[in-house]
Amino acid sequence: MRVETRLAARLQKINPSSTLAITSKAKKLKAEGKDIVSLAAGEPDFDTPDFIKEAAIQAIRSGFTKYTPTTGTPDLKKLISEKFKKDNAIDYAPEQIVVSCGAKHSIFNILMVLVGKGDEVLIPCPYWVSYPEMVNLCEGTPRFIKTSLENNFKITAKDLEKYAGVKAKVLILNSPSNPCGCVYTVEELKDIAPVCVEKKIYVISDEIYEKIIFDNQRHVSIASLNPDIYDLTTTVNGVSKSYSMTGWRIGYLGAPKDIAEAISRLQDHSTSCPSSISQKATTCALSAPDEFARNMCQEFQKRRDYLVDRLSKIKKIGFVLPKGAFYIFCNISKTKLDSLTFTNRLLEEAGVVAIPGDGFGKDDYVRLSFATSIEQLQKAMDRLEEWLVKI
Amino acid sequence: MRVETRLAARLQKINPSSTLAITSKAKKLKAEGKDIVSLAAGEPDFDTPDFIKEAAIQAIRSGFTKYTPTTGTPDLKKLISEKFKKDNAIDYAPEQIVVSCGAKHSIFNILMVLVGKGDEVLIPCPYWVSYPEMVNLCEGTPRFIKTSLENNFKITAKDLEKYAGVKAKVLILNSPSNPCGCVYTVEELKDIAPVCVEKKIYVISDEIYEKIIFDNQRHVSIASLNPDIYDLTTTVNGVSKSYSMTGWRIGYLGAPKDIAEAISRLQDHSTSCPSSISQKATTCALSAPDEFARNMCQEFQKRRDYLVDRLSKIKKIGFVLPKGAFYIFCNISKTKLDSLTFTNRLLEEAGVVAIPGDGFGKDDYVRLSFATSIEQLQKAMDRLEEWLVKI
Repeated sequence: MRVETRLAARLQKINPSSTLAITSKAKKLKAEGKDIVSLAAGEPDFDTPDFIKEAAIQAIRSGFTKYTPTTGTPDLKKLISEKFKKDNAIDYAPEQIVVSCGAKHSIFNILMVLVGKGDEVLIPCPYWVSYPEMVNLCEGTPRFIKTSLENNFKITAKDLEKYAGVKAKVLILNSPSNPCGCVYTVEELKDIAPVCVEKKIYVISDEIYEKIIFDNQRHVSIASLNPDIYDLTTTVNGVSKSYSMTGWRIGYLGAPKDIAEAISRLQDHSTSCPSSISQKATTCALSAPDEFARNMCQEFQKRRDYLVDRLSKIKKIGFVLPKGAFYIFCNISKTKLDSLTFTNRLLEEAGVVAIPGDGFGKDDYVRLSFATSIEQLQKAMDRLEEWLVKI
Repeated sequence: MRVETRLAARLQKINPSSTLAITSKAKKLKAEGKDIVSLAAGEPDFDTPDFIKEAAIQAIRSGFTKYTPTTGTPDLKKLISEKFKKDNAIDYAPEQIVVSCGAKHSIFNILMVLVGKGDEVLIPCPYWVSYPEMVNLCEGTPRFIKTSLENNFKITAKDLEKYAGVKAKVLILNSPSNPCGCVYTVEELKDIAPVCVEKKIYVISDEIYEKIIFDNQRHVSIASLNPDIYDLTTTVNGVSKSYSMTGWRIGYLGAPKDIAEAISRLQDHSTSCPSSISQKATTCALSAPDEFARNMCQEFQKRRDYLVDRLSKIKKIGFVLPKGAFYIFCNISKTKLDSLTFTNRLLEEAGVVAIPGDGFGKDDYVRLSFATSIEQLQKAMDRLEEWLVKI
C-alpha cells in the first residue's frame, strides 16, 4: 500500500492497473517498429454497426446535444425495460432503470450506494480487475471466494455459505465472465440464490457479456428466479460488448425501486446524464433485432475453437473451455514463471501481448483475448508454441 | 435525513434535487396545455456549433468508437494543456490533465480523491447545489462560509480565516459563479491564496463559466498566482457552457501531478474514458478560435442588461448585478415567502418557472436564468411584475 498523505484513505489502496504496464510496453515496442501480436484486447474488434452510427449522426444534426434526465431519456429507459423482460424475464419498470457512462460506471454506482466501511463484498476469484478496487474506493472490504479450474472457476452454494458471515453484504456475480468465460447454469443459480436470500446478501449481476455465449448455452439472470432474490439483485448490462460500442460509454442497470432511486440521486450529483448522442445510438441499437450480436458471437466461437484446438496441443498450458465472453484464462504454473514475468518475457522474446493473471487474482495464469482475427491468433499461437519450447 | 437501512451511510444524507420538483411540475403543466415561460435553464439555449458537430460525425464515420486511454486522448490532453497556458497562464503538462464526463464529474473525482471522513470542505454560500451533496457522498463535512449581497456574495481572506480550522481540507471556489454570477478579481484572489497556503487548504477552482463574463472583466485562475497555491489547486473546466455542449458530457481538470495521478486511478476503476466521440468533438472545439463563445457572451450580456433593467424597477425584488454566467440571484425577502412557496405560486399563478434558492443555501432567494430569448424574458418579467402586485 502506498502512503500519500495528501490523498483520502480510499485512494491509498488503489493500484495502477497491471494491464496498463504491459500494454504500454507493447505500444512502445510497436512504435519502435517491432512486429507485435496482441491478445490483450478487452473490446470486440468490430466497428459499431452502421445503422447505429447513422442514428447518432441524426441525433447530432437534429441538435440532440443537451442535458437529458439524469437516469436517461424516457424512450431509452422504456426500451431497456422491455429488453429486460424479453431477454431476461425480469420486470423492471422504467423508473427502476438507471443509464450510466458504461457498465463499469453502473457497478461503481451500485457499490457506492450499498457498501460502506465494515461491509464485505464477496468476489469469486478469478475476478475482473476493477471489482476489488471499486470496493476499496467505497471503503468496503473485498473478500475473495476461492474457485477451482475443475469447477470451471464457478462458485457453488457451499462455497458461498463459507464466506457469508455477518459482515457480508454484497456478492458480485459475472456470467459470462471476464477473465475465464464461465457461464452459470440455471441450476447453479438456483442453488446460490437461496443462500443470498437467507443471509440477506445483495447481488450485483454483471451480465455485460450476455450476448457472447457459445455452444447453445442459455444466459440466465439470477433476478429472474424468484421475488426474494429479485429484491436483492441489481442487474447490470450495456451496449459496449453486444453492439461493439465501447467508446460510446453506455451501461445500464435494473434494480429494486429504493436502490434505483438512490443510484439516481448519486448520479445526479456525480456525473448527471451520460452523453445524449450515445443514448440515441443505444436507443437505436436496442430497437433493432439481435442479428449483429448473433453474427459477432458466431465469429467469436470460431476463434475460440481455433484457439482451444491450438492450446490443447501445448502441454505447458492448462485452461478451461470458455463458454462465453472472448477470453481464455490459461494456467501457466508448469512454466514456473509468475504471470508478470511470463507476459513480460513473452512480449520481449516472442512479440506476443498477453495480460498477466495477477490483476485477476491468479498469478499463475494469463489471459488471452480472442477479440482479434484468426490470422493474428495463428501468428500468436505459432510464436507462443515456439517460445515455450525454448524457456 | 432519511433512514434507509439497505443503503450505505453516505447515501442517507443526499436529498433529491429541489430543482427537479419545480421543473417536473412545469413540464406537467405544459403538457396540460398551459402557457409556461421558463427561467430555469441551466444550459445555454444555443445549439452546438456546426463545425464541432461535423468533427463528431467524422469521428463516428471513421470508426473512432472504441475505448480511449482513461484520462483522454493524447491529442485532446495536449490541447487542454495549451488552453490552460494560453487562457489561464497555468502550466499543466498533459499528464496533469484528466478528461471526465462533464465538469461535475471532474469535481466529484477531486473530492473523492481528497476528502474522507472528518475532513471539512469550505463552501461559500450561496453555492451550486451539487457541492455539498458531493462532499456528503465522500463522507466529508460541508462547512458553509457566509457571504453578503453587499460583497457580491464573495468571500474575503478574513471570512476564510474564520473557517480555516484544523479540519478544513478543501475550499471550493466558483468564478464566475452559479447561482449569483459573481466574479473574483485578481486582487481578491491574491488575498485569499495566502490563507490557503498558510493553512494548507486545497482549492477546487470551478471555472466552467469562464467564457461567459461581462463588462470587460478578466477571468483569473487562482492556480496562476504562484507556485504555492498552484501546488494546492485543481482547476476545473469543460466545454458544456463555452461551446453549448452540455449533452456531450466533457469536463476536464488540471492538477498537481500526484492528485492528477490519483484521479486517473479512480477514473480507471469507476467510469474509464468519457465518450470517444465527444472527445473528438471537444478536440475540434478547443482547436478553433473563441468566436462562438464571444458571440454567445455578447448575447447573454444583452439579456442580462434587459433583465437587470426590468428587475431594478420591481421594488419587491433585490439582486446583485451578475458579472458572469447566465443567472441572476434575486432576494425575495420583501415578499415574506420562502423560496419553495414563491416558485410554486409563481408557476401556478403566473406560469413562470424560477428555481428556489433553498437548494443553493438561501431560502429567501430565487434564481432566474437568462439562457432564453429576450422575448421570453420580457414575457416572464411582465408576468412577474403583475403577479407581485397581487400577492
